[in-house]
Amino acid sequence: MRNLDEDTITQAVLARHTGAPDARLREIMTSLVQHLHAFARDVRLTEAEWFEGIRFLTEVGHMTDDKRQEFILLSDTLGLSMLVTALNNRKPPECTESTVFGPFHVEGSPEYPLGADVANGARGEPCYVRGRVLSRDGSPVPGAELQVWQADADGFYDVQYKGEHGHRARGTLHADAEGRFHFKSIRAEAYPIPHDGPVGRMLDALGRHPWRPAHLHFMITAPGFERLITHVFRNGDQYLDSDAVFGVRRSLIADWVVHPPGPTPDGGRSEQPFYTLDFDFVLNPLAQD
Amino acid sequence: MRNLDEDTITQAVLARHTGAPDARLREIMTSLVQHLHAFARDVRLTEAEWFEGIRFLTEVGHMTDDKRQEFILLSDTLGLSMLVTALNNRKPPECTESTVFGPFHVEGSPEYPLGADVANGARGEPCYVRGRVLSRDGSPVPGAELQVWQADADGFYDVQYKGEHGHRARGTLHADAEGRFHFKSIRAEAYPIPHDGPVGRMLDALGRHPWRPAHLHFMITAPGFERLITHVFRNGDQYLDSDAVFGVRRSLIADWVVHPPGPTPDGGRSEQPFYTLDFDFVLNPLAQD
Ligand SMILES: [Cu+2]
Ligand SMILES: [Fe+3]
Ligand SMILES: [Fe+3]
Repeated sequence: MRNLDEDTITQAVLARHTGAPDARLREIMTSLVQHLHAFARDVRLTEAEWFEGIRFLTEVGHMTDDKRQEFILLSDTLGLSMLVTALNNRKPPECTESTVFGPFHVEGSPEYPLGADVANGARGEPCYVRGRVLSRDGSPVPGAELQVWQADADGFYDVQYKGEHGHRARGTLHADAEGRFHFKSIRAEAYPIPHDGPVGRMLDALGRHPWRPAHLHFMITAPGFERLITHVFRNGDQYLDSDAVFGVRRSLIADWVVHPPGPTPDGGRSEQPFYTLDFDFVLNPLAQD
Repeated sequence: MRNLDEDTITQAVLARHTGAPDARLREIMTSLVQHLHAFARDVRLTEAEWFEGIRFLTEVGHMTDDKRQEFILLSDTLGLSMLVTALNNRKPPECTESTVFGPFHVEGSPEYPLGADVANGARGEPCYVRGRVLSRDGSPVPGAELQVWQADADGFYDVQYKGEHGHRARGTLHADAEGRFHFKSIRAEAYPIPHDGPVGRMLDALGRHPWRPAHLHFMITAPGFERLITHVFRNGDQYLDSDAVFGVRRSLIADWVVHPPGPTPDGGRSEQPFYTLDFDFVLNPLAQD
């Protein structure tokens, strides 16, 4: 331990962790130190570049508060969030794929009856969403809980507005006895992730844009099934091939079908064009043991 | 880009960086993403562990301010700082080795004449430090600037005390025409790195202590030579084999020789025991080009 050099230091750090009481923590830190050191060696990181990294992480830390999680944005934009999602949600191909959670979910969104307008005043073109929650064999999952949330026509979630406006374009619903759900909302729109901080500057320096293709978030839970966290993406969006957070899955792209003014699926009439989205979700049963 | 999975996402992220205007940034980010993803894959990082990591980094960010750099402590305790120091300070074996800079250097410490007491009231046992600044061929480096700094008998640097007490146990001196320097200070003592934050909790969880073996910091600059940032470590210290930041080099360990009360090297007398430290530094000439 008295003559470490660039070749021996990694083993010296790992040797220091042999007494860690938690075996999983030891495993994680062993791998982390090895990859971190391999990175510094591979690029021959200079002292000035190291310090730039310290400064960047400091800025990310200072940008982060109750409303803004800049470390999650960093993880998202480096593809780490999607990788962790994929590693932890392997499932049979007939099940709906998972994608990133994102930073805009809110616990305890208001409960709505089926058919309600969850937009609750959020600006956007009217959209009727319908579908079923199914098990792998195609049988319905009655009473599944669906949480939905999305950005408005200006690309913002309700929580990004200053001041108190209540929940908008988000809500909790329960599927009926046949696993069916339907609600009214607004058409999903593309939006840029918050990019007025260090992560935005990083994207800029890398020649990357901060946009996400239009999508509608779902979190679906039912007893006996794995929780499903996913989005439905709007077909035709210009950012489907360059999502800033790498969340797009082909199986999650669907058509928002436009309709002329006239009768709406809820039995009413629209004086303006409106959209419909139909999407069924297939949940993965919990492993028996 | 529409069907990423745990195997294809890394290449997808790298492909996004092909347009980065700065080639070195692209090189660094390519390696960083590869090693970061390999880490998550190797340990099959769970979503809960990922979130624990986000929370930890957030705490590190919130602990960091003008006086406290928790990200540097993190880098130090994971051996990254020492690795970067080693990578960037390869030099011939006759030159004095570099070690970590540490977070306690202060720009513009007071200038003292040779022989002065730089302790300036810091608590500790008296110590007389003497040596030479040399070039690789053994010739003196006249007038080299030496910045020195150290902890006091309680293990604290002056900057760790609240309130204004001025500079203590730190100063700037210049070697004479023969490259010789001497000054009075206090005996270096072991101290724990600041461990009341997330990095301290990490060390705890890993079964590690936060102590550094006793050392005296030097930063030496002279025209025509590479700047030398190093420590001299006190022989016999119980933490020489387990420095919390992996900074020890065998060639940097020296004896603090104890002397009974009596005449001191500066021609005075001490009523208490005192120490002497003799250490010569060999600078690396700047590469010619
Ligand atoms: Cu690696
Ligand atoms: Fe979103
Ligand atoms: Fe120190």
